Amino acid sequence: MDEVRIIEIKKSVFESNDKDADNLRKELKDKGIFLLNLMSSPGSGKTTTLIKTINLLKDKLRIAVMEADIDSDVDAVKIKEATGIQSIQLHTGGMCHLDAEMTRQGLDALELEGVDFAILENVGNLVCPAEFDTGSSKNAMILSVPEGEDKPLKYPLMFSICDVVLINKMDVMPYFDFNLEKCTEYIHMRNPKAEVIPICAKTGEGVDKFAEWLLKEIKNWK
Amino acid sequence: MDEVRIIEIKKSVFESNDKDADNLRKELKDKGIFLLNLMSSPGSGKTTTLIKTINLLKDKLRIAVMEADIDSDVDAVKIKEATGIQSIQLHTGGMCHLDAEMTRQGLDALELEGVDFAILENVGNLVCPAEFDTGSSKNAMILSVPEGEDKPLKYPLMFSICDVVLINKMDVMPYFDFNLEKCTEYIHMRNPKAEVIPICAKTGEGVDKFAEWLLKEIKNWK
Repeated sequence: MDEVRIIEIKKSVFESNDKDADNLRKELKDKGIFLLNLMSSPGSGKTTTLIKTINLLKDKLRIAVMEADIDSDVDAVKIKEATGIQSIQLHTGGMCHLDAEMTRQGLDALELEGVDFAILENVGNLVCPAEFDTGSSKNAMILSVPEGEDKPLKYPLMFSICDVVLINKMDVMPYFDFNLEKCTEYIHMRNPKAEVIPICAKTGEGVDKFAEWLLKEIKNWK
Repeated sequence: MDEVRIIEIKKSVFESNDKDADNLRKELKDKGIFLLNLMSSPGSGKTTTLIKTINLLKDKLRIAVMEADIDSDVDAVKIKEATGIQSIQLHTGGMCHLDAEMTRQGLDALELEGVDFAILENVGNLVCPAEFDTGSSKNAMILSVPEGEDKPLKYPLMFSICDVVLINKMDVMPYFDFNLEKCTEYIHMRNPKAEVIPICAKTGEGVDKFAEWLLKEIKNWK
Protein backbone atom coordinates (compact mmCIF):
# COMPACT_ATOMS: atom_id res chain seq x y z
CA MET A 1 0.00 0.00 0.00
CA ASP A 2 1.28 3.47 -0.89
CA GLU A 3 2.32 5.71 1.94
CA VAL A 4 0.91 9.22 2.06
CA ARG A 5 1.92 12.23 4.09
CA ILE A 6 -0.33 13.04 7.03
CA ILE A 7 -0.54 16.69 8.07
CA GLU A 8 -1.81 17.52 11.57
CA ILE A 9 -3.78 20.75 11.12
CA LYS A 10 -3.66 23.35 13.90
CA LYS A 11 -6.57 25.50 14.98
CA SER A 12 -6.68 28.88 13.26
CA VAL A 13 -5.68 32.02 15.08
CA PHE A 14 -7.22 34.45 12.60
CA GLU A 15 -10.17 36.43 13.81
CA SER A 16 -11.78 37.05 10.49
CA ASN A 17 -12.02 33.93 8.41
CA ASP A 18 -13.89 35.71 5.61
CA LYS A 19 -11.08 38.19 5.10
CA ASP A 20 -8.45 35.47 5.27
CA ALA A 21 -10.40 33.37 2.76
CA ASP A 22 -10.55 36.29 0.33
CA ASN A 23 -6.79 36.75 0.69
CA LEU A 24 -6.12 33.07 0.04
CA ARG A 25 -8.44 33.11 -2.99
CA LYS A 26 -6.50 36.07 -4.40
CA GLU A 27 -3.11 34.43 -3.73
CA LEU A 28 -4.25 31.25 -5.48
CA LYS A 29 -5.58 33.27 -8.41
CA ASP A 30 -2.19 34.96 -8.77
CA LYS A 31 -0.50 31.55 -8.80
CA GLY A 32 -3.02 30.18 -11.31
CA ILE A 33 -4.33 27.52 -8.94
CA PHE A 34 -8.07 26.80 -9.04
CA LEU A 35 -9.19 25.39 -5.67
CA LEU A 36 -12.28 23.19 -5.43
CA ASN A 37 -13.84 22.57 -2.00
CA LEU A 38 -15.79 19.30 -2.07
CA MET A 39 -18.28 18.66 0.74
CA SER A 40 -20.88 16.04 1.68
CA SER A 41 -22.22 13.85 4.47
CA PRO A 42 -20.02 10.97 5.60
CA GLY A 43 -20.18 8.14 3.05
CA SER A 44 -21.76 10.04 0.14
CA GLY A 45 -18.93 9.03 -2.17
CA LYS A 46 -16.55 12.01 -2.21
CA THR A 47 -13.38 9.94 -2.63
CA THR A 48 -14.76 7.61 -5.30
CA THR A 49 -16.14 10.61 -7.23
CA LEU A 50 -12.76 12.33 -7.02
CA ILE A 51 -10.91 9.26 -8.31
CA LYS A 52 -13.19 9.03 -11.37
CA THR A 53 -13.00 12.80 -11.97
CA ILE A 54 -9.21 12.98 -11.60
CA ASN A 55 -8.70 10.10 -14.03
CA LEU A 56 -10.78 12.01 -16.61
CA LEU A 57 -8.85 15.26 -16.08
CA LYS A 58 -5.28 14.33 -15.18
CA ASP A 59 -4.02 14.58 -18.78
CA LYS A 60 -5.51 18.08 -19.12
CA LEU A 61 -4.67 19.54 -15.71
CA ARG A 62 -1.96 19.09 -13.10
CA ILE A 63 -3.92 18.10 -10.01
CA ALA A 64 -3.14 17.82 -6.29
CA VAL A 65 -5.51 16.59 -3.58
CA MET A 66 -5.92 17.28 0.15
CA GLU A 67 -8.04 14.73 2.00
CA ALA A 68 -9.36 16.08 5.29
CA ASP A 69 -10.54 13.76 8.03
CA ILE A 70 -10.65 13.69 11.78
CA ASP A 71 -8.63 10.49 11.76
CA SER A 72 -7.26 7.74 9.43
CA ASP A 73 -5.46 8.07 6.10
CA VAL A 74 -7.62 5.71 4.04
CA ASP A 75 -8.82 8.38 1.60
CA ALA A 76 -5.44 9.87 0.72
CA VAL A 77 -4.04 6.37 0.17
CA LYS A 78 -7.03 5.46 -2.06
CA ILE A 79 -6.58 8.58 -4.21
CA LYS A 80 -2.84 8.00 -4.61
CA GLU A 81 -3.23 4.33 -5.49
CA ALA A 82 -6.09 4.87 -7.96
CA THR A 83 -4.85 7.99 -9.77
CA GLY A 84 -1.11 8.29 -9.16
CA ILE A 85 -1.43 12.02 -8.44
CA GLN A 86 -0.11 13.95 -5.45
CA SER A 87 -2.35 13.33 -2.43
CA ILE A 88 -1.93 14.24 1.24
CA GLN A 89 -4.05 13.60 4.31
CA LEU A 90 -5.05 16.47 6.62
CA HIS A 91 -5.97 15.54 10.18
CA THR A 92 -8.25 18.13 11.76
CA GLY A 93 -7.68 16.99 15.34
CA GLY A 94 -11.37 16.44 16.03
CA MET A 95 -12.50 19.61 14.27
CA CYS A 96 -15.61 19.37 12.14
CA HIS A 97 -14.61 21.68 9.29
CA LEU A 98 -11.71 23.48 7.59
CA ASP A 99 -11.43 27.25 7.41
CA ALA A 100 -9.11 29.31 5.18
CA GLU A 101 -6.08 29.17 7.47
CA MET A 102 -6.40 25.40 7.90
CA THR A 103 -6.70 25.04 4.11
CA ARG A 104 -3.57 27.16 3.76
CA GLN A 105 -1.69 24.76 6.06
CA GLY A 106 -2.69 21.95 3.72
CA LEU A 107 -1.67 23.88 0.58
CA ASP A 108 1.69 24.72 2.19
CA ALA A 109 2.33 21.00 2.62
CA LEU A 110 1.71 20.29 -1.09
CA GLU A 111 4.26 20.58 -3.89
CA LEU A 112 2.40 23.28 -5.83
CA GLU A 113 4.95 23.89 -8.61
CA GLY A 114 3.03 23.51 -11.87
CA VAL A 115 -0.24 22.55 -10.15
CA ASP A 116 -3.27 24.28 -11.70
CA PHE A 117 -6.09 22.40 -9.98
CA ALA A 118 -6.09 21.75 -6.21
CA ILE A 119 -8.89 19.84 -4.55
CA LEU A 120 -9.87 19.92 -0.89
CA GLU A 121 -12.03 17.01 0.24
CA ASN A 122 -13.59 18.55 3.34
CA VAL A 123 -14.65 16.65 6.51
CA GLY A 124 -17.83 14.61 5.97
CA ASN A 125 -20.44 16.93 7.47
CA LEU A 126 -23.41 18.82 5.99
CA VAL A 127 -23.43 21.51 8.67
CA CYS A 128 -20.17 23.13 9.82
CA PRO A 129 -18.08 23.14 6.60
CA ALA A 130 -20.79 25.33 5.04
CA GLU A 131 -20.12 28.03 7.64
CA PHE A 132 -16.41 28.48 6.86
CA ASP A 133 -15.14 29.89 3.59
CA THR A 134 -12.00 27.88 2.74
CA GLY A 135 -10.78 30.35 0.11
CA SER A 136 -11.91 27.97 -2.63
CA SER A 137 -12.62 29.17 -6.18
CA LYS A 138 -15.78 27.05 -6.28
CA ASN A 139 -17.75 24.86 -3.87
CA ALA A 140 -19.10 21.46 -4.82
CA MET A 141 -21.17 19.02 -2.81
CA ILE A 142 -22.43 15.49 -3.16
CA LEU A 143 -25.84 14.29 -2.04
CA SER A 144 -26.30 10.56 -2.44
CA VAL A 145 -29.62 8.88 -3.25
CA PRO A 146 -29.79 6.83 0.01
CA GLU A 147 -29.68 10.07 2.06
CA GLY A 148 -33.05 11.17 0.72
CA GLU A 149 -34.41 14.06 -1.32
CA ASP A 150 -35.33 16.20 1.71
CA LYS A 151 -31.77 17.18 2.67
CA PRO A 152 -31.93 20.69 1.08
CA LEU A 153 -34.86 21.39 3.44
CA LYS A 154 -32.86 20.36 6.50
CA TYR A 155 -29.39 21.71 5.65
CA PRO A 156 -30.21 24.97 3.84
CA LEU A 157 -26.84 26.72 4.19
CA MET A 158 -24.81 23.92 2.62
CA PHE A 159 -27.00 23.86 -0.48
CA SER A 160 -27.08 27.65 -0.74
CA ILE A 161 -23.28 28.01 -0.94
CA CYS A 162 -22.58 25.24 -3.47
CA ASP A 163 -22.04 26.01 -7.16
CA VAL A 164 -22.66 22.41 -8.16
CA VAL A 165 -24.55 19.56 -6.50
CA LEU A 166 -23.73 16.01 -7.62
CA ILE A 167 -26.49 13.49 -6.97
CA ASN A 168 -24.52 10.30 -6.45
CA LYS A 169 -25.39 6.57 -6.30
CA MET A 170 -27.95 6.91 -9.09
CA ASP A 171 -27.52 3.16 -9.70
CA VAL A 172 -29.43 2.34 -6.50
CA MET A 173 -32.42 4.59 -7.31
CA PRO A 174 -34.75 1.57 -7.74
CA TYR A 175 -34.15 0.52 -4.12
CA PHE A 176 -34.83 3.87 -2.48
CA ASP A 177 -37.70 6.35 -2.39
CA PHE A 178 -35.91 9.24 -4.03
CA ASN A 179 -37.57 11.73 -6.36
CA LEU A 180 -34.85 13.42 -8.43
CA GLU A 181 -37.21 16.08 -9.77
CA LYS A 182 -38.38 17.05 -6.28
CA CYS A 183 -34.78 17.02 -4.98
CA THR A 184 -33.68 19.37 -7.79
CA GLU A 185 -36.62 21.64 -6.96
CA TYR A 186 -35.56 21.74 -3.26
CA ILE A 187 -31.93 22.48 -4.24
CA HIS A 188 -33.06 25.36 -6.47
CA MET A 189 -35.24 26.71 -3.63
CA ARG A 190 -31.98 27.14 -1.70
CA ASN A 191 -29.84 28.20 -4.65
CA PRO A 192 -31.45 28.88 -8.05
CA LYS A 193 -28.04 28.98 -9.76
CA ALA A 194 -26.75 25.62 -8.53
CA GLU A 195 -25.89 23.14 -11.27
CA VAL A 196 -27.34 19.70 -10.51
CA ILE A 197 -25.57 16.67 -12.03
CA PRO A 198 -26.77 13.09 -11.41
CA ILE A 199 -23.83 10.64 -11.31
CA CYS A 200 -22.83 7.13 -10.33
CA ALA A 201 -19.27 7.37 -9.05
CA LYS A 202 -19.00 3.58 -8.82
CA THR A 203 -19.57 3.04 -12.57
CA GLY A 204 -18.38 6.50 -13.61
CA GLU A 205 -21.70 7.38 -15.26
CA GLY A 206 -22.28 11.15 -15.39
CA VAL A 207 -18.83 11.96 -14.00
CA ASP A 208 -17.84 13.23 -17.48
CA LYS A 209 -20.52 15.93 -17.07
CA PHE A 210 -18.89 17.03 -13.81
CA ALA A 211 -15.45 17.03 -15.48
CA GLU A 212 -16.84 19.20 -18.31
CA TRP A 213 -18.39 21.56 -15.75
CA LEU A 214 -15.01 21.86 -13.99
CA LEU A 215 -13.13 22.55 -17.25
CA LYS A 216 -15.67 25.25 -18.15
CA GLU A 217 -15.45 26.86 -14.70
CA ILE A 218 -11.64 26.80 -14.71
CA LYS A 219 -11.65 28.39 -18.20
CA ASN A 220 -14.07 31.15 -17.10
CA TRP A 221 -12.09 31.76 -13.92
CA LYS A 222 -8.77 32.32 -15.73
CA MET B 1 -50.97 17.09 7.60
CA ASP B 2 -50.64 17.30 11.39
CA GLU B 3 -49.24 20.46 12.84
CA VAL B 4 -46.38 20.21 15.30
CA ARG B 5 -44.89 22.73 17.65
CA ILE B 6 -41.58 24.22 16.56
CA ILE B 7 -39.21 25.38 19.31
CA GLU B 8 -36.44 27.84 18.40
CA ILE B 9 -33.48 26.78 20.57
CA LYS B 10 -31.22 29.49 21.97
CA LYS B 11 -27.47 29.18 22.34
CA SER B 12 -26.40 27.97 25.77
CA VAL B 13 -24.92 30.33 28.31
CA PHE B 14 -23.52 27.64 30.57
CA GLU B 15 -19.76 27.42 30.74
CA SER B 16 -19.50 23.82 31.74
CA ASN B 17 -21.67 21.60 29.61
CA ASP B 18 -20.45 18.43 31.31
CA LYS B 19 -21.60 19.64 34.72
CA ASP B 20 -24.93 20.82 33.33
CA ALA B 21 -25.41 17.49 31.55
CA ASP B 22 -24.83 15.59 34.80
CA ASN B 23 -27.36 17.82 36.57
CA LEU B 24 -29.95 17.23 33.84
CA ARG B 25 -29.33 13.48 33.95
CA LYS B 26 -29.93 13.50 37.72
CA GLU B 27 -33.10 15.59 37.40
CA LEU B 28 -34.47 13.23 34.77
CA LYS B 29 -33.60 10.23 36.92
CA ASP B 30 -35.54 11.77 39.82
CA LYS B 31 -38.53 12.26 37.53
CA GLY B 32 -38.24 8.71 36.17
CA ILE B 33 -37.60 9.85 32.60
CA PHE B 34 -35.09 7.82 30.56
CA LEU B 35 -33.60 10.04 27.83
CA LEU B 36 -32.19 8.50 24.66
CA ASN B 37 -29.94 10.63 22.42
CA LEU B 38 -30.06 9.29 18.85
CA MET B 39 -27.36 10.41 16.42
CA SER B 40 -26.26 9.68 12.84
CA SER B 41 -25.22 11.21 9.54
CA PRO B 42 -27.91 12.99 7.54
CA GLY B 43 -30.17 10.44 5.86
CA SER B 44 -29.14 7.35 7.81
CA GLY B 45 -32.74 6.68 8.79
CA LYS B 46 -33.13 8.09 12.31
CA THR B 47 -36.78 9.11 11.88
CA THR B 48 -37.90 5.88 10.18
CA THR B 49 -36.11 3.83 12.86
CA LEU B 50 -37.81 5.85 15.60
CA ILE B 51 -41.25 5.36 14.07
CA LYS B 52 -40.81 1.58 13.95
CA THR B 53 -39.31 1.52 17.48
CA ILE B 54 -42.03 3.73 18.99
CA ASN B 55 -44.80 1.62 17.47
CA LEU B 56 -43.25 -1.47 19.13
CA LEU B 57 -42.94 0.26 22.53
CA LYS B 58 -45.82 2.73 22.83
CA ASP B 59 -48.07 0.28 24.68
CA LYS B 60 -45.34 -0.44 27.23
CA LEU B 61 -43.93 3.08 27.73
CA ARG B 62 -45.23 6.63 27.58
CA ILE B 63 -43.00 8.23 24.97
CA ALA B 64 -42.27 11.80 23.84
CA VAL B 65 -39.99 12.83 21.00
CA MET B 66 -37.86 15.92 20.25
CA GLU B 67 -36.75 16.20 16.63
CA ALA B 68 -33.77 18.53 16.23
CA ASP B 69 -32.93 20.07 12.88
CA ILE B 70 -31.42 23.26 11.60
CA ASP B 71 -34.57 23.94 9.61
CA SER B 72 -37.91 22.34 8.52
CA ASP B 73 -40.44 20.39 10.56
CA VAL B 74 -40.72 17.33 8.33
CA ASP B 75 -39.44 14.87 10.95
CA ALA B 76 -41.66 15.96 13.84
CA VAL B 77 -44.69 15.82 11.54
CA LYS B 78 -43.71 12.34 10.29
CA ILE B 79 -43.36 11.00 13.87
CA LYS B 80 -46.69 12.47 14.93
CA GLU B 81 -48.55 11.16 11.88
CA ALA B 82 -47.04 7.68 12.03
CA THR B 83 -47.17 7.02 15.78
CA GLY B 84 -49.68 9.43 17.32
CA ILE B 85 -47.31 10.24 20.16
CA GLN B 86 -46.20 13.65 21.41
CA SER B 87 -43.59 15.10 19.05
CA ILE B 88 -42.01 18.55 18.83
CA GLN B 89 -39.49 20.09 16.47
CA LEU B 90 -36.41 21.84 17.81
CA HIS B 91 -34.74 24.38 15.53
CA THR B 92 -31.07 24.83 16.36
CA GLY B 93 -30.68 28.11 14.46
CA GLY B 94 -27.82 26.83 12.33
CA MET B 95 -26.08 25.04 15.16
CA CYS B 96 -24.62 21.63 14.44
CA HIS B 97 -25.36 19.90 17.74
CA LEU B 98 -27.37 20.05 20.96
CA ASP B 99 -25.83 20.40 24.38
CA ALA B 100 -27.47 19.80 27.77
CA GLU B 101 -29.00 23.28 28.10
CA MET B 102 -30.45 23.13 24.59
CA THR B 103 -31.86 19.68 25.37
CA ARG B 104 -33.39 21.13 28.55
CA GLN B 105 -35.13 23.82 26.47
CA GLY B 106 -36.66 21.04 24.39
CA LEU B 107 -37.72 19.03 27.45
CA ASP B 108 -39.30 22.16 28.97
CA ALA B 109 -41.46 22.49 25.86
CA LEU B 110 -42.79 18.93 26.19
CA GLU B 111 -45.71 17.81 28.33
CA LEU B 112 -43.70 15.48 30.57
CA GLU B 113 -46.50 14.40 32.97
CA GLY B 114 -46.44 10.60 32.93
CA VAL B 115 -43.71 10.35 30.29
CA ASP B 116 -41.10 7.70 31.11
CA PHE B 117 -39.17 7.59 27.83
CA ALA B 118 -38.01 10.77 26.07
CA ILE B 119 -36.14 10.63 22.79
CA LEU B 120 -33.89 13.30 21.32
CA GLU B 121 -33.21 12.93 17.61
CA ASN B 122 -30.02 14.98 17.33
CA VAL B 123 -28.90 17.00 14.28
CA GLY B 124 -27.65 14.76 11.44
CA ASN B 125 -23.90 14.98 11.96
CA LEU B 126 -21.23 12.42 12.90
CA VAL B 127 -18.85 14.98 14.36
CA CYS B 128 -20.12 17.72 16.66
CA PRO B 129 -23.00 16.00 18.51
CA ALA B 130 -20.42 13.51 19.85
CA GLU B 131 -18.60 16.35 21.61
CA PHE B 132 -21.55 17.56 23.69
CA ASP B 133 -23.13 15.50 26.46
CA THR B 134 -26.88 16.13 26.20
CA GLY B 135 -27.66 14.73 29.64
CA SER B 136 -29.02 11.56 28.05
CA SER B 137 -29.26 8.28 29.91
CA LYS B 138 -27.90 6.41 26.90
CA ASN B 139 -26.51 7.30 23.47
CA ALA B 140 -27.50 5.47 20.31
CA MET B 141 -26.32 5.95 16.75
CA ILE B 142 -27.22 4.68 13.32
CA LEU B 143 -24.72 3.85 10.60
CA SER B 144 -26.38 2.91 7.32
CA VAL B 145 -24.95 0.41 4.84
CA PRO B 146 -24.56 2.94 1.97
CA GLU B 147 -22.24 5.07 4.15
CA GLY B 148 -19.59 2.35 4.22
CA GLU B 149 -17.92 0.20 6.83
CA ASP B 150 -14.95 2.56 7.36
CA LYS B 151 -16.84 5.23 9.28
CA PRO B 152 -15.62 4.14 12.76
CA LEU B 153 -12.07 4.79 11.48
CA LYS B 154 -12.93 8.32 10.37
CA TYR B 155 -15.30 9.44 13.16
CA PRO B 156 -13.77 7.79 16.24
CA LEU B 157 -15.36 9.93 18.97
CA MET B 158 -18.96 9.30 17.82
CA PHE B 159 -18.50 5.53 17.91
CA SER B 160 -16.65 5.64 21.23
CA ILE B 161 -19.50 7.39 23.11
CA CYS B 162 -22.41 5.28 21.81
CA ASP B 163 -23.89 2.45 23.84
CA VAL B 164 -25.58 0.93 20.82
CA VAL B 165 -24.88 1.16 17.07
CA LEU B 166 -27.70 0.24 14.70
CA ILE B 167 -26.54 -0.81 11.23
CA ASN B 168 -29.46 0.32 9.07
CA LYS B 169 -30.55 -0.34 5.45
CA MET B 170 -29.50 -3.99 5.64
CA ASP B 171 -31.94 -4.64 2.76
CA VAL B 172 -29.60 -2.92 0.27
CA MET B 173 -26.48 -4.87 1.34
CA PRO B 174 -26.35 -6.70 -2.04
CA TYR B 175 -25.92 -3.39 -3.87
CA PHE B 176 -23.08 -1.99 -1.76
CA ASP B 177 -19.59 -3.10 -0.77
CA PHE B 178 -20.19 -3.35 2.96
CA ASN B 179 -18.58 -5.94 5.20
CA LEU B 180 -20.67 -6.23 8.39
CA GLU B 181 -18.04 -8.28 10.20
CA LYS B 182 -15.29 -5.76 9.45
CA CYS B 183 -17.59 -2.87 10.42
CA THR B 184 -18.39 -4.52 13.77
CA GLU B 185 -14.64 -5.04 14.32
CA TYR B 186 -13.98 -1.32 13.64
CA ILE B 187 -16.82 -0.29 16.01
CA HIS B 188 -15.38 -2.49 18.77
CA MET B 189 -11.92 -1.00 18.19
CA ARG B 190 -13.48 2.32 19.21
CA ASN B 191 -15.78 0.94 21.88
CA PRO B 192 -15.53 -2.71 22.92
CA LYS B 193 -18.79 -2.50 24.91
CA ALA B 194 -20.97 -1.11 22.09
CA GLU B 195 -23.95 -3.29 21.18
CA VAL B 196 -24.21 -3.69 17.39
CA ILE B 197 -27.68 -4.42 15.96
CA PRO B 198 -28.28 -4.81 12.20
CA ILE B 199 -31.72 -3.51 11.20
CA CYS B 200 -33.84 -2.50 8.25
CA ALA B 201 -35.99 0.41 9.42
CA LYS B 202 -37.99 0.37 6.17
CA THR B 203 -39.27 -3.20 6.68
CA GLY B 204 -38.89 -3.17 10.47
CA GLU B 205 -36.53 -6.16 10.47
CA GLY B 206 -34.26 -6.20 13.53
CA VAL B 207 -36.00 -3.21 15.14
CA ASP B 208 -37.50 -5.60 17.73
CA LYS B 209 -33.93 -6.34 18.89
CA PHE B 210 -33.38 -2.59 19.42
CA ALA B 211 -36.70 -2.32 21.29
CA GLU B 212 -35.65 -5.24 23.54
CA TRP B 213 -32.29 -3.58 24.16
CA LEU B 214 -34.08 -0.35 25.18
CA LEU B 215 -36.47 -2.16 27.55
CA LYS B 216 -33.52 -3.96 29.16
CA GLU B 217 -31.55 -0.70 29.55
CA ILE B 218 -34.53 1.19 30.99
CA LYS B 219 -35.12 -1.69 33.47
CA ASN B 220 -31.44 -1.70 34.58
CA TRP B 221 -31.44 2.11 34.85
CA LYS B 222 -34.43 2.23 37.20
